[in-house]
Amino acid sequence: MDSIHDDTCPRFEDTLELVGRRWTGSVLQAAGRGARRFGEYRAMIDGISDRLLSQRLKELEAAGLIERTVIPSTPVQIRYQLAPDGRALVDALVPLAQWSMRRSST
Amino acid sequence: MDSIHDDTCPRFEDTLELVGRRWTGSVLQAAGRGARRFGEYRAMIDGISDRLLSQRLKELEAAGLIERTVIPSTPVQIRYQLAPDGRALVDALVPLAQWSMRRSST
Repeated sequence: MDSIHDDTCPRFEDTLELVGRRWTGSVLQAAGRGARRFGEYRAMIDGISDRLLSQRLKELEAAGLIERTVIPSTPVQIRYQLAPDGRALVDALVPLAQWSMRRSST
Repeated sequence: MDSIHDDTCPRFEDTLELVGRRWTGSVLQAAGRGARRFGEYRAMIDGISDRLLSQRLKELEAAGLIERTVIPSTPVQIRYQLAPDGRALVDALVPLAQWSMRRSST
C-alpha cells in the first residue's frame, strides 16, 4: 500500500491544523457572512475574547486568507475581509459544515 | 448582524476541532484509501507513532466514524474501517484537500 503522503499531504495536515484551531472556523464564517470591522466579528461570534479574535485575525492575515485594510479617516478605521484564498477556503468548508449539520440532526 | 452561532455552529467548531487534531485527517484518508489493519494504517501514514495511531483510531471509533471489527481467527485479527458517517466525512473533506493542493501549487 503506497503512502498517502504524496507531496500534497503535509499541506493537507497543515490546512486541517489551521482550520482546526479554536475559533478559526467561526472567524472565517463571520468573514464569509459580511463581517468587516473588529466589532462586527465580535458581535457575530459568541464567546470569543478580544485577545483571541485579534490573534486569529493576525494568523489568518499572515496565512494570506484575510486582508487588513486601513482607512486613514479620523479616527482610523480598519477592515478585515477575505482574501481570494480565504473566500475559496470558506467555500471548501461548506460540505464540512453540511456534514456536521446532518450529523447533529440525527 | 446576527450571530453566526445558530444551533449548528458549536457542532461545526467541534467538527473542525476533531479533524484538526494532528494525524486525524491522515487516518481518515488512509481509511478512505482502503487501509483496514493497524499495520496498513501505519504503512500509509509516514511518521505516525503506534501510540498516536492507536489513540486516533479509538477517538474516531468513539465518534462513530470508524468501526472496529474483531475477527475471531487465531491469531485474532482486528479491522478498522469507515463507518457511514466516516465515509461521508472523508467525502466532505475532499474540497478542503483540493483547496490545499491548489494553494501549494501556487
